Amino acid sequence: MAADQDDVELLQDIVDLALSEGVNVREVSRKRLFADAHTEAPQGVIAMAAPLPEADLDDLLVLDGDEVPFLIALDGVTDPGNLGALLRSAECAGATGVILPRHRATHVTPTVTKAAAGAVEYLPMTIVGGLPSALLRLRDQGVHVIGLDSTGGRSLFELTAVDVPLCLVLGAEDHGLSRLVRQRCDELARIPLLGHLASLNVSVAGALACYEVARRRTSRG
Amino acid sequence: MAADQDDVELLQDIVDLALSEGVNVREVSRKRLFADAHTEAPQGVIAMAAPLPEADLDDLLVLDGDEVPFLIALDGVTDPGNLGALLRSAECAGATGVILPRHRATHVTPTVTKAAAGAVEYLPMTIVGGLPSALLRLRDQGVHVIGLDSTGGRSLFELTAVDVPLCLVLGAEDHGLSRLVRQRCDELARIPLLGHLASLNVSVAGALACYEVARRRTSRG
Repeated sequence: MAADQDDVELLQDIVDLALSEGVNVREVSRKRLFADAHTEAPQGVIAMAAPLPEADLDDLLVLDGDEVPFLIALDGVTDPGNLGALLRSAECAGATGVILPRHRATHVTPTVTKAAAGAVEYLPMTIVGGLPSALLRLRDQGVHVIGLDSTGGRSLFELTAVDVPLCLVLGAEDHGLSRLVRQRCDELARIPLLGHLASLNVSVAGALACYEVARRRTSRG
Repeated sequence: MAADQDDVELLQDIVDLALSEGVNVREVSRKRLFADAHTEAPQGVIAMAAPLPEADLDDLLVLDGDEVPFLIALDGVTDPGNLGALLRSAECAGATGVILPRHRATHVTPTVTKAAAGAVEYLPMTIVGGLPSALLRLRDQGVHVIGLDSTGGRSLFELTAVDVPLCLVLGAEDHGLSRLVRQRCDELARIPLLGHLASLNVSVAGALACYEVARRRTSRG
């Protein structure tokens, strides 16, 4: 597979690292590699990993030390690139867990994993049957649920409680939060649009919301 | 071209709107449409527009009323999708102009225009021969230049001057700001990374920086 000297060295580095970590390394044919890679331009190495452990909703609230839960719930995000980008930004902003609905949404596919740039390895995730009831369960356990919605009465930059356990709910690309999910939120926040355009990309909007929580939490800490 | 009734109605709406605005409408063959569309899945309509007017660097500092310049300079962003996403977020955050370097960077192509979701129609842009000298010229005219850089000593959330004329400089996908550009900045700011990952996507980082300026300017106003 290796096209030039740099590639050969890079592959050897990967093999060495794998062996030093006790990972089995197997050489396969080019044909087999292409078949298993599920991508159009495989780069010569495939990692086979065990399925990601799936957490329960309640598990997401049990954290080490004095960490305060900071959950992200996604209401029907369907584009794998957007989901991956959201997971990456959420991890960088210090989110502690992710809630995905089982239906009408994308899950963690190889495309998502790639766009997430490693975030799926660090962010505990749970898949729930119904997001509205999951949000109610969280509220019963003292989690403050904030929905990001263009109809929100409050600006994202005026959130009230951020030091308590939080769940940030992000809507779908086309129509935002579903009605029932919107009703289950403690507060709705909108991102101010200061120019002429009517909307931000959903993964950008999610990143802004995650980092606003991060900013508020760290500036108070 | 139209596949079903909805498409036919949508096309007719577009034709009606164009005619009501005094735009010439011409029907062409499917073959001609595909040839002119420069996209794999043309959707039945092509708008032919005059080239975007190109502004001078100095023009970007002359604004209506009491608007304070808020410029974005891009140092070698090469991915059209990232450039388009950045322009969209910058417009939503109230940026007043964009500076692109002539060399080693992507310019406004159809892919960029599409990802920018309309932002290129609203954001004045200028292309400069050398970004470092352009930044010096801006500083001579009282513009505070902030570079976004992972080596920055200050957190993005601790920026000093935001109410003065500003230029935010965003670096390339792989290696951030070039050395000379970094030296021409008044201050360097980094985005805090609170998880395990080493970096954010460049268009997300840019959006966070633009909105931090927006947040600070609006919360003080």
